[in-house]
Amino acid sequence: MSPSDPVSLPASTWIDGDWIEGGGITTPAGFVAGGAYAGIKTYGPEPRLDVGLLASESGPCVAAGVFTRNAVVGHPVTHNKRILAARSDVRGVVCNSGNANTVTGAQGADDCQRMASLAGARFGASADEMLVGSTGVIGRMLPMDRVEAALETIEVSREGGTDFARAIMTTDTHDKQCALRVTAAGRTYHVGGCAKGSGMIHPDMATMYGFVTTDAPVTPEWLKATWKAAVDRSFNMVDVDMDTSTSDMGIVLASGAAGGDPVTDGHPAASLLAAAIEAVATRLAKAIARDGEGATCLIEVTATGAATEADARIAARTVTSSPLMKTAVTGRDPNWGRVMMAAGRSGAALDQDRASVWIGSHCVLDRGQPTSVDLKAVSAAMAGEVVSIRVDLGVGEAQATAWGCNLTHAYVDINADYTT
Amino acid sequence: MSPSDPVSLPASTWIDGDWIEGGGITTPAGFVAGGAYAGIKTYGPEPRLDVGLLASESGPCVAAGVFTRNAVVGHPVTHNKRILAARSDVRGVVCNSGNANTVTGAQGADDCQRMASLAGARFGASADEMLVGSTGVIGRMLPMDRVEAALETIEVSREGGTDFARAIMTTDTHDKQCALRVTAAGRTYHVGGCAKGSGMIHPDMATMYGFVTTDAPVTPEWLKATWKAAVDRSFNMVDVDMDTSTSDMGIVLASGAAGGDPVTDGHPAASLLAAAIEAVATRLAKAIARDGEGATCLIEVTATGAATEADARIAARTVTSSPLMKTAVTGRDPNWGRVMMAAGRSGAALDQDRASVWIGSHCVLDRGQPTSVDLKAVSAAMAGEVVSIRVDLGVGEAQATAWGCNLTHAYVDINADYTT
Repeated sequence: MSPSDPVSLPASTWIDGDWIEGGGITTPAGFVAGGAYAGIKTYGPEPRLDVGLLASESGPCVAAGVFTRNAVVGHPVTHNKRILAARSDVRGVVCNSGNANTVTGAQGADDCQRMASLAGARFGASADEMLVGSTGVIGRMLPMDRVEAALETIEVSREGGTDFARAIMTTDTHDKQCALRVTAAGRTYHVGGCAKGSGMIHPDMATMYGFVTTDAPVTPEWLKATWKAAVDRSFNMVDVDMDTSTSDMGIVLASGAAGGDPVTDGHPAASLLAAAIEAVATRLAKAIARDGEGATCLIEVTATGAATEADARIAARTVTSSPLMKTAVTGRDPNWGRVMMAAGRSGAALDQDRASVWIGSHCVLDRGQPTSVDLKAVSAAMAGEVVSIRVDLGVGEAQATAWGCNLTHAYVDINADYTT
Repeated sequence: MSPSDPVSLPASTWIDGDWIEGGGITTPAGFVAGGAYAGIKTYGPEPRLDVGLLASESGPCVAAGVFTRNAVVGHPVTHNKRILAARSDVRGVVCNSGNANTVTGAQGADDCQRMASLAGARFGASADEMLVGSTGVIGRMLPMDRVEAALETIEVSREGGTDFARAIMTTDTHDKQCALRVTAAGRTYHVGGCAKGSGMIHPDMATMYGFVTTDAPVTPEWLKATWKAAVDRSFNMVDVDMDTSTSDMGIVLASGAAGGDPVTDGHPAASLLAAAIEAVATRLAKAIARDGEGATCLIEVTATGAATEADARIAARTVTSSPLMKTAVTGRDPNWGRVMMAAGRSGAALDQDRASVWIGSHCVLDRGQPTSVDLKAVSAAMAGEVVSIRVDLGVGEAQATAWGCNLTHAYVDINADYTT
């Protein structure tokens, strides 16, 4: 392959469906959502919301989740893992931003339980039927009086997806939502989602926040396996700054409101619905990378010629996360040697005498030999909204794509003064 | 332990010896060095030198080396590994800065051999008796006509250590040298060294450039084992930007000019000489971290309470290399949750309910509970030349110390425009 059209989705998520303008998590039938402001978060664009509620409208829905592998985890991660180990149906998700409720001791655990309890009460559900998300500063106590007041007054509706998407934002500059409509075996399904970045982003088997809903009826086993595979190729291929959050979570909820038999392996809609879920997750993942703290462009790195898919994944991720590559993109500096340096340190097998590198459409290293390409043209190929890089490791046939962003002064500024 | 005096060396390198003012690689008897300017490097402080030569004055010396584990390596790394696999004595080292001679194909291999050959000829030695170092931009051909002219005219002397130390600098803002005198079993030995950073610094079993000399007589086996252990606790505990160079190398040369029996296991000077070598390596390693690209302070992180030394090492290194921790230090932001986040993602075993964190002398997390420490005082403890952080993982007795630096606008600027 030659470097793909940089704004297209990778081949694995090309899909026969329709993106719905303005769509999000409440586009699929059966879901309501909303947001409120409790004053936890003192930064970010208006309207500033910091408590969000997402629920299945008329009863439990099928749920699956993946969570951070950081050894330090927030109380909500512990709560959600416990719930999803015991059951596959929940009523919804309650979130706050501005405070991660992490490393907050026994009081933090109580606060998490209280959030689940109050949110569940809105729908006649128990605390064990509500998933919880808290994102923001680590090691501070939640202002529970204000959280409780917000949870009692928050309004949810079929139009509330955007408020929810805004309520989960921390340093994100805008909300991240999308929705897709697909038709299979004579039935129409919707998949919607929202996500948040935008720092401490180097997901390890999960993402910061990625919430996806669908109105398709599904079996719990199929949803779990499909979600894990989609997250591995989407959210888990994103990097902003190498730092894995203590709050990462990716949750998918299926209401079944579209009707019909539950989708599972062998169902005629299974492969298209799985592709739709992956497409939504990938679009959200790319939005997280593009809105990485201080970023001015998306970096899309495809590793080809790898011995294994695992090697391709780690090589692509390492190039996207290299500070030297990220700063070179900021300066439009055609310093492609850093692509080789990063691929080389990734742990992936490569043959430096057979490896090749492209920046945009320019081949800068051809099977181990630097080419005589015009470096000014290479620099120009690094000036757009999307910078496309391909490295061929020269040892096999496997490939993978990862997404990251450039490193600018603004990343330093945002993170030098986060809590004070 | 409580956080140690931040400017002192860690306990393992406390040493009964005298640091020699202005000392370096030619302080130990038996070594000559020098530098010249070939015009490869077009940046950096004056006097600008970019070709360096270090040699044993009167004949071969015992040598040991450790090298980058990046899968992409410069031709000099390949050359040196081949030589040191076959022999334990060499005549010296020839280096250039400004060009890494990496991913440069067959011509690059020839150029490396030619550098070794020309440098060796100055001392009646063969190319196989000369180690080579090239550091700088990857993927460009060396201007061999100018390198050759420099190698023919370069002057070496007992006073040339500083010129050599300057000739290996890339984006370093100053040279890094030191020397130590120790006396054991009635005999005086000297250990000197120089090193360079200051970007692409995340050594993997080796360092960017660390050259150490001693006038002690040693056995090759003892020197190899001693050097490996010293590098693991010094250069390998440094991070600037997570990016492992393709040119990393740490070389130690022993002339034997101090006289006496060769130092080996059981020799009365063995433990003190090993400590002296580690002390020199540690001082140089800290100098690399402090002069990291764009850095304004040194960050010293000690992980205690670890299950194993390997866990302590990876936890300490991960905290020093976390972009979010590095930017928090830039802003003197007492956002200690990021210490826990980084320790948590390091892979080290920890118990978040028993873990503690100190910044300077302030305990901010006490066995899983945030303390009521005055965050302004914590911020003040982050304002000095050295920021001292300790994280206790709460699971064992092992500990390790790592060094890094803060992340500033200047890192972005330096690396956005490196080759153009």
